[in-house]
Amino acid sequence: MKTLLLSMEDVQKALSMKEVIDVVEEGYLAFHRGKVRQPEIVSIEMPENNGETDIKSCYNELNERISVKVASGFYNNGKNNNLPTMMGTILLYDGTNGALLCVMDGSLITGIRTGAAGAISSKLLARKDAATVAVFGAGGQARMQVEGLCHVMNLREVRVFSENRDELTGYQKEMEQQTAARVVVCNNPEETMAGSDIVITTTPAKTPYIHQSLVKPGMHIVAVGADMAGKNELDPAIFRGAKIVNDSIAQCVSRGETRNALMAGVMTESDIHGEIGQLLAGEKALRECENEITIFDTTGMGIQDNVTAVMVYERALQKGLGSVFQFM
Amino acid sequence: MKTLLLSMEDVQKALSMKEVIDVVEEGYLAFHRGKVRQPEIVSIEMPENNGETDIKSCYNELNERISVKVASGFYNNGKNNNLPTMMGTILLYDGTNGALLCVMDGSLITGIRTGAAGAISSKLLARKDAATVAVFGAGGQARMQVEGLCHVMNLREVRVFSENRDELTGYQKEMEQQTAARVVVCNNPEETMAGSDIVITTTPAKTPYIHQSLVKPGMHIVAVGADMAGKNELDPAIFRGAKIVNDSIAQCVSRGETRNALMAGVMTESDIHGEIGQLLAGEKALRECENEITIFDTTGMGIQDNVTAVMVYERALQKGLGSVFQFM
Repeated sequence: MKTLLLSMEDVQKALSMKEVIDVVEEGYLAFHRGKVRQPEIVSIEMPENNGETDIKSCYNELNERISVKVASGFYNNGKNNNLPTMMGTILLYDGTNGALLCVMDGSLITGIRTGAAGAISSKLLARKDAATVAVFGAGGQARMQVEGLCHVMNLREVRVFSENRDELTGYQKEMEQQTAARVVVCNNPEETMAGSDIVITTTPAKTPYIHQSLVKPGMHIVAVGADMAGKNELDPAIFRGAKIVNDSIAQCVSRGETRNALMAGVMTESDIHGEIGQLLAGEKALRECENEITIFDTTGMGIQDNVTAVMVYERALQKGLGSVFQFM
Repeated sequence: MKTLLLSMEDVQKALSMKEVIDVVEEGYLAFHRGKVRQPEIVSIEMPENNGETDIKSCYNELNERISVKVASGFYNNGKNNNLPTMMGTILLYDGTNGALLCVMDGSLITGIRTGAAGAISSKLLARKDAATVAVFGAGGQARMQVEGLCHVMNLREVRVFSENRDELTGYQKEMEQQTAARVVVCNNPEETMAGSDIVITTTPAKTPYIHQSLVKPGMHIVAVGADMAGKNELDPAIFRGAKIVNDSIAQCVSRGETRNALMAGVMTESDIHGEIGQLLAGEKALRECENEITIFDTTGMGIQDNVTAVMVYERALQKGLGSVFQFM
């Protein structure tokens, strides 16, 4: 039984943001149509090493593949060693017989499928004339979100803020090279939010740094960073009266930014407008007026990894990428 | 970052039942001492393909390794294709920084660490003069359990029964070659149980096939097969008045043979004598008299995979086994 091995470099050669946006949309729809068996996320925390490991698994009836992603964040990496903070591995199995088809690096896939999620939500929920984005955090995900946006709109300006100011120069340079947008480095959340149409939060913050007063009518917010209990980027009051869309209600309610708003008592679960798959299926309204505040809360779903990894695996086979190993 | 790849053959070269028994004992003790973070088992069922996949993960503070095992059982395999029914993969991570140290075949490890568990329980709970074992099922685990027993006692006779009679001749031949015991092929549970000191159940049965009347005073039962809701090999009445030991009470109560007895109302959770780690630590009594009926219910723990995989990884490095792949 032969298993394909794909390095991050192989994965990079096998995917593009545009295609990932397409397959993630298909994945959201499959989830909405009950074609996906997606167990609860498993988390192991290692606070003594400032680290955590999450396991997201999923069986997709439509492609008959089981995916298991093990993704970790070790926040002392880089300082103590030469390792990246975020790393991951994806195992892909044939769901008809359990054969291990592929072991691939999952670090890039996590980034790109999350960028795709933000882009899909902006396509559905941002104002049609949206052109300026406020980005919080200047790491990998802050890049991916902007890359995703560029595929669904004409982005004119990126306003970026990070507590870690060292990252900002590199971010500005890189994003100006990669996109047609002007990148403005800001000094605080107020400055960053000013004039923005879309707001993207990508930090691991545990206390909210975007006050309700900074959120203006018509904004679309993509809440990416808060993906487990304890993380919180947005003032919960922002959720009051907003159109709230989740990737998975079950997940966002238990570990997303939505959880923080529920716990703060500014909303109840019935105030959630719906899941993104419902919007894609045309079963729930998109943005209904120019002044509406919309929020997409994403905690990241196994199905996103599943459809992206399957696409990567198939492209890699076509292109002859990777190596083969016989585990048994 | 280099990752070691180990095939089943490499794994086989790197371990022995004797050593696995030792490390699994250490693992049970570590779990008992609160040194293990072991999330709930994740299960994905694919009844349309007569298959299931389980994910057992664990962080062991003592070796600072995270293990994630993905193990599947696809029960049409072999008939439809040339694949084994049970397959698995283990990922081993450095718990201080998230680096992927090793991807290894997990099929053999699952078998051998489960065999080790049965042997440990028999060493602690079977009568000192135990010499005859009744084995139900004649597959891989029926072999591993007997191999394990041979390391902790002088086994004179193996009495084996399987609904799948085709397996029995091969089993008899193989086990007589591998052990010093006489192997007797039996025609029904009554015949199998007659004169046995230890009883080992390894089938995926969903209805009990061992009636209470067949269980005699002094027997030790190792309940291996029933590891998820719906599986049931023992008449629940057997649990009434027996000394019941679990690998993990939380797991056995929710998915082991213990669950069936609880649901049948023949016992309550307070009737469980303890976890095997408590017995190993000397905090709970072992067998207290010749006539006692003892039951060890094992659903299989992430910590068993963890300690076994770490031993395999270290031995493989020492012996220069496996291949290296750079995922990132």
